[in-house]
Amino acid sequence: MTAEGPFAVLGLGLIGGSLARDLAASGATVWGYDTDAATMRRARRSGAVAATIGHDLSQLAGAQTVVFAVPVDAAPALMERAQPFLEGAALITDVGSTKRRIVAHAAALGLGRTFVGSHPMAGGDQAGWAASRRGLFAGARVDLCGNAAASPAAWRRARAMWRRVGGRPAARDATAHDAEVALSSHLPQVLAIALAGALAARGIPRNRLGPGGRDMTRLAGSSPDVWAAIVADNAAEVLVALDECQATLGALRSAVAAHDRGAVREAFTHARRWMEASGGRRAQIRRVEGVER
Amino acid sequence: MTAEGPFAVLGLGLIGGSLARDLAASGATVWGYDTDAATMRRARRSGAVAATIGHDLSQLAGAQTVVFAVPVDAAPALMERAQPFLEGAALITDVGSTKRRIVAHAAALGLGRTFVGSHPMAGGDQAGWAASRRGLFAGARVDLCGNAAASPAAWRRARAMWRRVGGRPAARDATAHDAEVALSSHLPQVLAIALAGALAARGIPRNRLGPGGRDMTRLAGSSPDVWAAIVADNAAEVLVALDECQATLGALRSAVAAHDRGAVREAFTHARRWMEASGGRRAQIRRVEGVER
Repeated sequence: MTAEGPFAVLGLGLIGGSLARDLAASGATVWGYDTDAATMRRARRSGAVAATIGHDLSQLAGAQTVVFAVPVDAAPALMERAQPFLEGAALITDVGSTKRRIVAHAAALGLGRTFVGSHPMAGGDQAGWAASRRGLFAGARVDLCGNAAASPAAWRRARAMWRRVGGRPAARDATAHDAEVALSSHLPQVLAIALAGALAARGIPRNRLGPGGRDMTRLAGSSPDVWAAIVADNAAEVLVALDECQATLGALRSAVAAHDRGAVREAFTHARRWMEASGGRRAQIRRVEGVER
Repeated sequence: MTAEGPFAVLGLGLIGGSLARDLAASGATVWGYDTDAATMRRARRSGAVAATIGHDLSQLAGAQTVVFAVPVDAAPALMERAQPFLEGAALITDVGSTKRRIVAHAAALGLGRTFVGSHPMAGGDQAGWAASRRGLFAGARVDLCGNAAASPAAWRRARAMWRRVGGRPAARDATAHDAEVALSSHLPQVLAIALAGALAARGIPRNRLGPGGRDMTRLAGSSPDVWAAIVADNAAEVLVALDECQATLGALRSAVAAHDRGAVREAFTHARRWMEASGGRRAQIRRVEGVER
């Protein structure tokens, strides 16, 4: 059996579009679908998409792999529409930032054997086909989540697809995944827009920020539609993450208010230790200085 | 009169070291001082520093411009030690992230006529001479703050020095400056370490984060000493900034808890509008797409 496709990518935005480009560049046949006709034309013209899929989705019956690359709130309904044509697929996956609900939904539609959901840790603060590009997944971790019925063949295909575009796939439990991304991805997003909101309220424009402030607000440009859907889908975990962060922030506020410089310093030291433990900062320092310590 | 120096740079860390490198590269004579002997030797060897200043600071008497480039809590005492030798200086400045206290301190020491404080909006999450580099100030805004007694000649020299290293100097009131940087610089820093603290508490290492999460935690590697001093120096304004951000965050939390997706979406839209108003994101999109909209 060949793993050459056809791959059907439903939704040609930043993630779906980039995946289509990389799969096509690797020699696979990619079929594309998008509700926006102009996007479909541009994807065809780019050469990434060999054929477009009609609105009735019946062409999906010929696809070996089907990728739902639409916002998390749109994926369940699109999967229902596609379901009659997915019997022959060897792998069904998605690219959403939350996994518990979509894994359960696929199982409820009788697709649990071939569905292995994906969450590529890649993206950007811009959306749409125009922002899609080759190499988006190079080196990116991709969490894979399936239910107990998912077949070894579907798992193998999911791993192979992401490796093919440069990703680093790893199996995760969907519930554990959603709890972690609430902290590692959704909380940073929420903090960025809270910071942007506070700056906007004071009338401080972004071009007055230094490099640190610009890093901390880059995510404020993210798509409101995509993110309102993600936050809604993972609301319970996002609330827990927010409360944990607000507790940390509250303790820091108390230390500042009490002029407890030792406690403030300790909070900064604690954060830096976390950076170093991940290897990120140390590795950077080694590169800069050209010596091992 | 020539503006060629000698420039005396006290403190050869990330900011002072980078300034020394750029000034020297522009043809100026730079004298350097640092409490760390190894740093002094490295600065001499690099060619950026033509002569080192002894611990008694008496050589400062021959300097035309004196730059205090030490942490904000160390600057006042160092200025007191240097004061007997600063009579002949045409410009005295600093590089601290807070300006109200140092401007007042310089005036109290009788240096108000020649002191124009500086805050270059440049930096990085690494500290020390090893992190210093040419070009750090290229395109960076530099806020300049002096008291009413500061002479036009001192202002001119301060502007000229920063333009010489590629900066964009602008006069600001010191109190307004400190209130603004509490939001634009100190709050982002505090949010980054709160986020790092929340991730550390859950045992999530930085290498599990996507590009957005990495942006949002880069500042967590910043120097605890430097930042505990800045936060202490600007505590009142930092508390106001923290409260404003926590109010924004609290409203967002309520919307998530109430499953009020419209309100969540609106918060994201509000943040994106702020991004776009600053030109940042729109300009990026234009570059990516190659068309004006």
